[in-house]
Amino acid sequence: MAKSTKSKGRRSAAQPTPNFHGHDILSVDQFNRESLDYIFEVAHEMRVLVERFGSADLLQGKILANLFYEPSTRTSSSFMAAMLRLGGQVIPINNVQYSSVSKGESLPDTIRTLESYSDVIVIRHPEVGSATTAAYYAEKPVINAGDGVGEHPTQALLDMFTIVEELGGVDGLKIAMVGDLKYGRTVHSLTKLLLDYKVEFTFVSPENLRMPNEILDAVKRRDHTYVETEAIQDVIANADVLYVTRVQKERFTDLAEYDRVKDFYVVDEELMQQAKEEMIIMHPLPRVGEISYAIDDDPRAAYFRQMRNGMYIRMALLAAVLGKA
Amino acid sequence: MAKSTKSKGRRSAAQPTPNFHGHDILSVDQFNRESLDYIFEVAHEMRVLVERFGSADLLQGKILANLFYEPSTRTSSSFMAAMLRLGGQVIPINNVQYSSVSKGESLPDTIRTLESYSDVIVIRHPEVGSATTAAYYAEKPVINAGDGVGEHPTQALLDMFTIVEELGGVDGLKIAMVGDLKYGRTVHSLTKLLLDYKVEFTFVSPENLRMPNEILDAVKRRDHTYVETEAIQDVIANADVLYVTRVQKERFTDLAEYDRVKDFYVVDEELMQQAKEEMIIMHPLPRVGEISYAIDDDPRAAYFRQMRNGMYIRMALLAAVLGKA
Amino acid sequence: MAKSTKSKGRRSAAQPTPNFHGHDILSVDQFNRESLDYIFEVAHEMRVLVERFGSADLLQGKILANLFYEPSTRTSSSFMAAMLRLGGQVIPINNVQYSSVSKGESLPDTIRTLESYSDVIVIRHPEVGSATTAAYYAEKPVINAGDGVGEHPTQALLDMFTIVEELGGVDGLKIAMVGDLKYGRTVHSLTKLLLDYKVEFTFVSPENLRMPNEILDAVKRRDHTYVETEAIQDVIANADVLYVTRVQKERFTDLAEYDRVKDFYVVDEELMQQAKEEMIIMHPLPRVGEISYAIDDDPRAAYFRQMRNGMYIRMALLAAVLGKA
Repeated sequence: MAKSTKSKGRRSAAQPTPNFHGHDILSVDQFNRESLDYIFEVAHEMRVLVERFGSADLLQGKILANLFYEPSTRTSSSFMAAMLRLGGQVIPINNVQYSSVSKGESLPDTIRTLESYSDVIVIRHPEVGSATTAAYYAEKPVINAGDGVGEHPTQALLDMFTIVEELGGVDGLKIAMVGDLKYGRTVHSLTKLLLDYKVEFTFVSPENLRMPNEILDAVKRRDHTYVETEAIQDVIANADVLYVTRVQKERFTDLAEYDRVKDFYVVDEELMQQAKEEMIIMHPLPRVGEISYAIDDDPRAAYFRQMRNGMYIRMALLAAVLGKA
Repeated sequence: MAKSTKSKGRRSAAQPTPNFHGHDILSVDQFNRESLDYIFEVAHEMRVLVERFGSADLLQGKILANLFYEPSTRTSSSFMAAMLRLGGQVIPINNVQYSSVSKGESLPDTIRTLESYSDVIVIRHPEVGSATTAAYYAEKPVINAGDGVGEHPTQALLDMFTIVEELGGVDGLKIAMVGDLKYGRTVHSLTKLLLDYKVEFTFVSPENLRMPNEILDAVKRRDHTYVETEAIQDVIANADVLYVTRVQKERFTDLAEYDRVKDFYVVDEELMQQAKEEMIIMHPLPRVGEISYAIDDDPRAAYFRQMRNGMYIRMALLAAVLGKA
Repeated sequence: MAKSTKSKGRRSAAQPTPNFHGHDILSVDQFNRESLDYIFEVAHEMRVLVERFGSADLLQGKILANLFYEPSTRTSSSFMAAMLRLGGQVIPINNVQYSSVSKGESLPDTIRTLESYSDVIVIRHPEVGSATTAAYYAEKPVINAGDGVGEHPTQALLDMFTIVEELGGVDGLKIAMVGDLKYGRTVHSLTKLLLDYKVEFTFVSPENLRMPNEILDAVKRRDHTYVETEAIQDVIANADVLYVTRVQKERFTDLAEYDRVKDFYVVDEELMQQAKEEMIIMHPLPRVGEISYAIDDDPRAAYFRQMRNGMYIRMALLAAVLGKA
């Protein structure tokens, strides 16, 4: 496998800087190789900044409205930390279900009210398309923090960024995605982002939770090859990235089938002995059993660093849409 | 209609500055023309400050305890934004129903505890008089953010401020209030504040939701005239301000009566064609159908600017009671 | 009773400064006379700082994850205020029951996620030992804000600090603890901390709510004497500190017994007439009837100052564990 720092894709001086100032972040479809490189470069600078100084005053005086129609401690805390570390402030709006916001008020009205108080809006909402609706009505930038089974672009960006930071680049990597590939929003978005790079895909799932044809077709259209298989054991020896998601018992109507396959989707010390020395295990968290706690201290276990990368990516995006990157 | 910048009521140099330092903001009855002029002047400066610089450090190091016994995203976010834009910090206390605060502890004890951590307290509480009780026990300034069917003075102030900012002053205006005038706290308070000015009132409501006699008597006592009518159509051509509130079906025991009148209380494009060119539509929000979305982009639709004015008024009040205006 | 400023225990120049940098605050057992003196000295400086300047920028750029698995407005607000007054920022995580945090995710995973966003973690959790578990997995400092019937060390520290601030020191004092001494976490921890000092204990409680033998044994082992009695009236004339806790009716199976004793545990004006001029009434709050509102303005009523001392102690601890004290 060819892996070099060249493939890290730092932009050359000749390229113009992608301009996110005032723009919304709604979908992974907005990004190409060039804009990803730019965001990852800024996110890397954010990492250096936090590691050296803890925080900065880049967004001093700016206010983020952090609007969560669904609870998500992890994502809302990550955005909040990102804004605070850049010297900005946050209005957290978490209990939307109890407030006037939910008493029949339309999403556009809520958004136009909140943007009158703030400089940027982050929205998590259970309905597909809600972030796009919010962005349509808002004059201030809107960042999609997950709209139901739709998009969760900052998750996909932090996943990509983790691969870049951990392995020095993306081209040439063997990437295995594992678990529930049918309903997993994160693996769909990550696959889309990876289409711009030269990677080898392996999709590891039970028969009933295979990657949707729509995604497989997109992979083929872009001249990528992929392999589908049922067991991690088949891919562990060669994978550079093992991206694990949860296989939920509730997805199976045939419980005998569940019992047959469930052990194929647990990452433990025994499995890790077959893995390469330089590879990484990723997981969007929370995990419930699919990765053994015993490997948390294995340097290849990247999922907690991946969390931290989420903060850096969100710092980069907030700075970018507010014109301060 | 005579409308000039003179009527904007900027104070002359000879007048002493009203002193709010350390005072509570509990009721619209505390304000007269002079103190309103002062607050509106400060609020206007806050608007300029936010539009030019986004924020300031006037209240740096100060802490607001934002105590909401009832959920109100709009009002709590507005106070929070006001404090943050001035460089202060906020302790949001939203889930009072779950905490020790509600486990039998008296309001005075809660207030005395919170003021030991903070510099100013904002309180929203379902019971009339609770803000006054809070202010009695607190040494720190208390701002009433709504005490049940009692007062919500910052709403009335932001309504008045919106008229001043939009139309250059208050004297000489024809002001029509529309909808549920019986139970609407906002129209009662706004009417009281307007009694100090030379305005012509029109009260537009269904028979069963007429403005209470207590308010009408106050209007008469101060030598104001008013007209009552049932339909917006009667007033739309002459109104300088059309202040719309919601007419709820639940208020009617006779549903045939509701069906007869309900169309009298919807502001839409057709109605707006009859309105003057320089006039404004106001609404305390949230709206649920009484103003058509189609007029949102009409420059006369002032309700989202009204929201933003709420932040400026609260910035002015926080600065004033903390001695920094 | 001998009470002098010498007993205030300010450390002499020769003593090394106890080092809390990077340490966890989990239990009162971590503290001895020397480290208490140090924390109280820092807390006193925090008091001076707040009284003179309101706030400082000692913890600028630092982020506190304020993780409350149980609601506790008082304690969470106190930590939040402490962090904000020192220029730091706070991620409040209050509705843990609704979020992924509670959807089967383990406490270690939640903690490792949150520490990737923050610099210090405060945790309140219903289970004994949870703070210790959190501290084991976290690389960042963890402060226990109450783990069920386990520990609540910052409460005990603020209680001790209040005695020092109010009475100039601890040695030589007559300390009476009153009320539910069986289940009261605060009186257990305070007693443990006092064992390092020369004090006379009196434990005032109904028979069924006596101080547990485990605590009494610890008192004896350290060569302290104590007296147990049933009525405040027996101790009020001599007490330097009267630490009152609530006696709940629900603790009694024999309601006749409750009726017999309940008046023994109410502090009112009549009782206070028998108290010394220089003594203090303390209470962890919230109170529900055990201290009459009529004595709130008595200078000996120290419970609201005690609240405020909670903020100073937490400022001192946050600064200390972040290496800025």
